[in-house]
Amino acid sequence: MTKVRRGQSFHTHRGYIHFDDLIGRAFGERVKSSLGVDFVAFRPNILDYTRKMVHATQVIYPKDMGLIVVYSAIGHGSRVVEAGTGSGALTSILANFVDPTGRVYSYEIRPEFLEKARKNIERAGMLDRVELKNKDVALGIDEKDVDAVVLDLAAPWTIVSKAYEALKGGGTIVSFSPTIEQVVNTVEALEAEGFVGIEASECIARRIKVKRGQTRPETLMIGHTGYLTYARKAIKEA
Amino acid sequence: MTKVRRGQSFHTHRGYIHFDDLIGRAFGERVKSSLGVDFVAFRPNILDYTRKMVHATQVIYPKDMGLIVVYSAIGHGSRVVEAGTGSGALTSILANFVDPTGRVYSYEIRPEFLEKARKNIERAGMLDRVELKNKDVALGIDEKDVDAVVLDLAAPWTIVSKAYEALKGGGTIVSFSPTIEQVVNTVEALEAEGFVGIEASECIARRIKVKRGQTRPETLMIGHTGYLTYARKAIKEA
Amino acid sequence: MTKVRRGQSFHTHRGYIHFDDLIGRAFGERVKSSLGVDFVAFRPNILDYTRKMVHATQVIYPKDMGLIVVYSAIGHGSRVVEAGTGSGALTSILANFVDPTGRVYSYEIRPEFLEKARKNIERAGMLDRVELKNKDVALGIDEKDVDAVVLDLAAPWTIVSKAYEALKGGGTIVSFSPTIEQVVNTVEALEAEGFVGIEASECIARRIKVKRGQTRPETLMIGHTGYLTYARKAIKEA
Amino acid sequence: MTKVRRGQSFHTHRGYIHFDDLIGRAFGERVKSSLGVDFVAFRPNILDYTRKMVHATQVIYPKDMGLIVVYSAIGHGSRVVEAGTGSGALTSILANFVDPTGRVYSYEIRPEFLEKARKNIERAGMLDRVELKNKDVALGIDEKDVDAVVLDLAAPWTIVSKAYEALKGGGTIVSFSPTIEQVVNTVEALEAEGFVGIEASECIARRIKVKRGQTRPETLMIGHTGYLTYARKAIKEA
Repeated sequence: MTKVRRGQSFHTHRGYIHFDDLIGRAFGERVKSSLGVDFVAFRPNILDYTRKMVHATQVIYPKDMGLIVVYSAIGHGSRVVEAGTGSGALTSILANFVDPTGRVYSYEIRPEFLEKARKNIERAGMLDRVELKNKDVALGIDEKDVDAVVLDLAAPWTIVSKAYEALKGGGTIVSFSPTIEQVVNTVEALEAEGFVGIEASECIARRIKVKRGQTRPETLMIGHTGYLTYARKAIKEA
Repeated sequence: MTKVRRGQSFHTHRGYIHFDDLIGRAFGERVKSSLGVDFVAFRPNILDYTRKMVHATQVIYPKDMGLIVVYSAIGHGSRVVEAGTGSGALTSILANFVDPTGRVYSYEIRPEFLEKARKNIERAGMLDRVELKNKDVALGIDEKDVDAVVLDLAAPWTIVSKAYEALKGGGTIVSFSPTIEQVVNTVEALEAEGFVGIEASECIARRIKVKRGQTRPETLMIGHTGYLTYARKAIKEA
Repeated sequence: MTKVRRGQSFHTHRGYIHFDDLIGRAFGERVKSSLGVDFVAFRPNILDYTRKMVHATQVIYPKDMGLIVVYSAIGHGSRVVEAGTGSGALTSILANFVDPTGRVYSYEIRPEFLEKARKNIERAGMLDRVELKNKDVALGIDEKDVDAVVLDLAAPWTIVSKAYEALKGGGTIVSFSPTIEQVVNTVEALEAEGFVGIEASECIARRIKVKRGQTRPETLMIGHTGYLTYARKAIKEA
Repeated sequence: MTKVRRGQSFHTHRGYIHFDDLIGRAFGERVKSSLGVDFVAFRPNILDYTRKMVHATQVIYPKDMGLIVVYSAIGHGSRVVEAGTGSGALTSILANFVDPTGRVYSYEIRPEFLEKARKNIERAGMLDRVELKNKDVALGIDEKDVDAVVLDLAAPWTIVSKAYEALKGGGTIVSFSPTIEQVVNTVEALEAEGFVGIEASECIARRIKVKRGQTRPETLMIGHTGYLTYARKAIKEA
């Protein structure tokens, strides 16, 4: 991903491309590099932006983002609390899907992450519907009656009661954690708060090498990223 | 999922509930059935609607919907072509995420499926941004410059050239198929049309039974639903 | 699996077969049932015997047996301690591979299991190299300098120090457990006893439905049977 | 794996060890290297030998060897045909389990592989029950009434009729292949020859990183090695 600037060029190990050759052409058209190799210029889409961010911290993959988006059941106009912000990749995906009248409230205690995330989210064009908060979510969530709480934290179970307070009845909580002990602790915290429909699962994505007569799953794969824990808020009896 | 009607009741093998007991209460509150069992009433969210539809035809699972949504890179305002409509579950999910100014053009050749799907999509509240078409997509796609083409067809490879014509440069094509031969044929068709970034993958979702001291993946699982084939349109040289 | 008896017959929902039609024919030959369906009679092999036993208690599958045999590194003449005996399926497999000069010492505290196992192992023709012991392995292992200890117990970590005492230097310990907490406890016990080369793994076996043009993994699969924990005895410093 | 020689030493990046320090000590005892790091010397077992061989050609993993051994249902005294020999790793495992009165007849057309394999098998102590044949198995199998045929070939389907001729009634055939097209072709050939009990499967082995509070499947894993195709010979009607 790079910015096209008149008079400059883009260098790769397969030759360079003059940006001037791109200007005035449609996205998706092919141009030849100095070494005669075909390149195609695309306008980055939301997946491109987040993949680039993910590269840096290597946490949430498209397969997991997809599950989080579908399980959180967000959509146009949803109000979502996220903690922590991390690289801003998941923030951007959530913002893309609550777009444009919804809102993502994203909590992050490390200021240096927050600044990096702000740049990433802005680049992805999603900043106008994201509220970044340099706060410890363990101290409480400012928002009420939100549609979903999405957690990517080292100790998600400590936040479950705060999530209960912030969620509307029937709202969803989705937590992403690499270790099984995090899942066990979080499920117990959800049960203690009376959440229902509790599910834990893992999504294993497997790339297939496709070539007629030589088709097979790839030899080396990402074997594990994390587990997803999901539940829905049921209101406690008074 | 059921409709609350004054004076009526809802019967289950764990007792019945008078709907009058629900009226005036918040979603997420608990009510006791005639047998003293706690029930929680939720307003259905988009995942509830599609899960209900999926039950009937058992084709696309949440894990696959999530991947399709993220890979197709759709969002607010996107224009998406889908074929075929099937139960309308994936149509509803796509509509939820292009909401409200985008549009899903969904092709289905079997009129009886189309009518069932229309009811499902309407119930999910998504019909105003879906255009259902009782047409064979193999005869051509009416729309131009669409952002994404999503295929759930027996012979997706026969539609690849039509998808090329309908897509904007850089637009995405995502095809979901149960068999590996469909994937091989589709990848070859994509290569022939000059699509780039071609990937095939499978997402294996595994439920975990979580209970401290007894935590383990579930014994019986859905081992396979289908493969996802993905690519992006590069414009052919004139 | 049934015993061929002169003058009798074998009944199935695809018709019956007179045993007299089988007598004098080679294994692997086809005979027609009363309904005209082809049947093939095989002499049971070791896998047939154990599969039949496994059916009853559903614990260790061929995929897991294979791993246990290879990781335990047993062979002709090996002396192996097993606990518990269970149905005798794994006992028979181990006996098959230490055959004929080796020995499997199998501990089981439940007398009713031991009797059932004895019949199963005898039927599989392996009883002459198995020593069945109605003893609690937690009270100690009688044998010394054994090549391998194979555990299929609810609390394998409590036996690790007994296994250390029974094993020769460099001998292998292989434990099979359904839950992740069993694995964590066992790995910690192995570390505490100074075992080396500790590994934990899971083997996911996936059946493929093969038919040209319709090839795909099976929809429903056994998603989990158990984890395998493996290590090798290093002698503690005096 | 190395040979202990009086007066020499073994060098590693964690210091060196004088072989004289090992002589006279039991296998499994710890010795300190020149840098003070603990080392443990083991007598190599059959898995050690084959793992070392596998390293070179990276074809059949312990998980696959285990399945092949169990599905082929071999044991003491079995006569097995193998093609091709490759590195000799699978040959050694098969020989270990037919040991000592059985026999493995191993076909390999590439003389340079056969020589390498002979050294590997000899080192593993299995050569006395292996017959290595520098012959193209497609030209026919010399042996008759064998218990099992094990194939690790690029075109296993071309050998199915030869395997039929070599096998006893009820004998097993097990083929290992990396691609799905090999599996489809092989299953069709098995059906054409009247084999029964045909099954195709894949074994996915997943390493678990075990540490209390941080337990999770490993991030990077071997995602695919190969498929196993299995069947049993039913005698064709005359």
